Amino acid sequence: MSSQQAVAEALHQARSVLILSHTNPDGDAVGSALGLMWALRSLRLRAHVALPDPVPANLTFLPGANSVGGQELVDDQDVCVVLDSSSPQHVGDLFEYATARECRVINVDHHVTNVRFGHVNWINPACPAVAQMIYWLLPLLGVSPDPKIATCLLTGFVTDTNGFSTPNTTPRLLHDAAELVTAGAPLADIIREAHLNRSLAQVRLWAQALQSLCFEDGIVWTVNTPAMRRAAGATERDSSGLSTFLLTIREAHMAASFTVLDDGRIRVSLRARPGYDVAAVAARFGGGGHPPAAGATLDGPLDEAVTLVISAMKAQVADYSATVEQP
Amino acid sequence: MSSQQAVAEALHQARSVLILSHTNPDGDAVGSALGLMWALRSLRLRAHVALPDPVPANLTFLPGANSVGGQELVDDQDVCVVLDSSSPQHVGDLFEYATARECRVINVDHHVTNVRFGHVNWINPACPAVAQMIYWLLPLLGVSPDPKIATCLLTGFVTDTNGFSTPNTTPRLLHDAAELVTAGAPLADIIREAHLNRSLAQVRLWAQALQSLCFEDGIVWTVNTPAMRRAAGATERDSSGLSTFLLTIREAHMAASFTVLDDGRIRVSLRARPGYDVAAVAARFGGGGHPPAAGATLDGPLDEAVTLVISAMKAQVADYSATVEQP
Repeated sequence: MSSQQAVAEALHQARSVLILSHTNPDGDAVGSALGLMWALRSLRLRAHVALPDPVPANLTFLPGANSVGGQELVDDQDVCVVLDSSSPQHVGDLFEYATARECRVINVDHHVTNVRFGHVNWINPACPAVAQMIYWLLPLLGVSPDPKIATCLLTGFVTDTNGFSTPNTTPRLLHDAAELVTAGAPLADIIREAHLNRSLAQVRLWAQALQSLCFEDGIVWTVNTPAMRRAAGATERDSSGLSTFLLTIREAHMAASFTVLDDGRIRVSLRARPGYDVAAVAARFGGGGHPPAAGATLDGPLDEAVTLVISAMKAQVADYSATVEQP
Repeated sequence: MSSQQAVAEALHQARSVLILSHTNPDGDAVGSALGLMWALRSLRLRAHVALPDPVPANLTFLPGANSVGGQELVDDQDVCVVLDSSSPQHVGDLFEYATARECRVINVDHHVTNVRFGHVNWINPACPAVAQMIYWLLPLLGVSPDPKIATCLLTGFVTDTNGFSTPNTTPRLLHDAAELVTAGAPLADIIREAHLNRSLAQVRLWAQALQSLCFEDGIVWTVNTPAMRRAAGATERDSSGLSTFLLTIREAHMAASFTVLDDGRIRVSLRARPGYDVAAVAARFGGGGHPPAAGATLDGPLDEAVTLVISAMKAQVADYSATVEQP
């Protein structure tokens, strides 16, 4: 029996299912959880979604978003499904709380680093989104996607592939997306609500940060400070997305967004085009990530942190140039 | 014989083909033209692409982009294919020049307003991109998409659907996109190069324009001036895309980007969420467009133009609110 079949089997034997996912839930966490919830409910199973943090504003449009809760939803469930979480730590205290009782743990994830903490584990790193794994589960559960299920799952596809723009967006994912649109998922609405959705405060913060825009040797960067956030009515999290935006500048090989945190430390978010490696840059400052997207937190002062990180990035760009110019 | 078959038939009888498209060519114009060029060349037909304006910077990555020319490519072609152009005027003087000789004109377009100016006309307003029509033509031509053809056509899909985000993005388009990825089109690269690609000067201009960001009654707007463009090293065209960006603000029902042109007039670009109608607003000022995207050019002074347009937009928002609140 494949691990995918084992998951379907365990769900068929369930009486009541609690679905969990990771802290700071994104579109794939919330979308795959709610998609599975609606699929199980269509089989007249009891199913609830509990998350360690609230559903973010860009995902409240999802059908069932207002039914998502926290540990108050932990009851007498006999099965816990954990989605999109490479280890129990990603679910926080909620995992311990939910699994303290006699309860079968089903672990469905697409992170290659998954530590296989479930009684049943289905890990598929080839899937760009866990929502695609849930979509593949539907026929094994005997469920046809209705518009609610389709909307939730397609939201996972759209957000985890950054609008079908990540290199792991496969033909199969596009075919599956087409089927979800056929099943009633409103793709244009999903992209607008879940993917291209910024708050006024966030755009006001970006406007201020972009005033400090610097460009040297193929590297573009900005800085945002607590004073800017106060002026914009924004939070530390509102600077997220800015490094990705900066990398849309065609002259840039790499981009960095420096955030002076409220505690005075400097968080830097790094992005790079294919061929460049900002994970190596982040690692020099105790951070981590992947070659195209990484981050680190440094002690201040700001000027020193910027100088250190930009120097390391310039060295990376020079390394790359030296490599490609070799005979 | 369907009009699609008539196009294939006319191309099969051709000796040498000139492919034309519209002024200010976008990703669908250049992508569908180059895709058709490579398809015809794979049949050992002579084929060239001539455009009234240069290929824009975000499309120079397309295979064959450097072979695109202007009227110097007009030779003894016996067939002219005009793509993505609802009338000859959209092709400018190049159309008259190219068709002055004995020459069969094939008109392939997806605009409902097409005036059917060709000897053969294939108009399909249900297609989000003309590149999809060219994709459907391939089997009738006996051509399988190679990576070059696939890359050019998928670029048309991505740009004309604004990254699969327009409401006319059909399941069929997603299935066809999947097939083009299978045929070798690098979707991630295409989105990065053709769709999410801004110049440093453009982002510097946006940063300045966003300083003037205003928000009232669900309407967000910015202004950019010749002085800002000089400071940013930007042109009038660099303000394009800003109204679309503004509408990603979740609090906004409608967005407006005012550009003070070099001649002192005021161009306003308008965007609206589903249910709202900025074409009606633009029409009041002699402009035009569609309910979600429209524009107009007004005489100055700036303050007066902003007041007039924002008042008209507020009236639209109020109308809409009154409609949806009716019992």
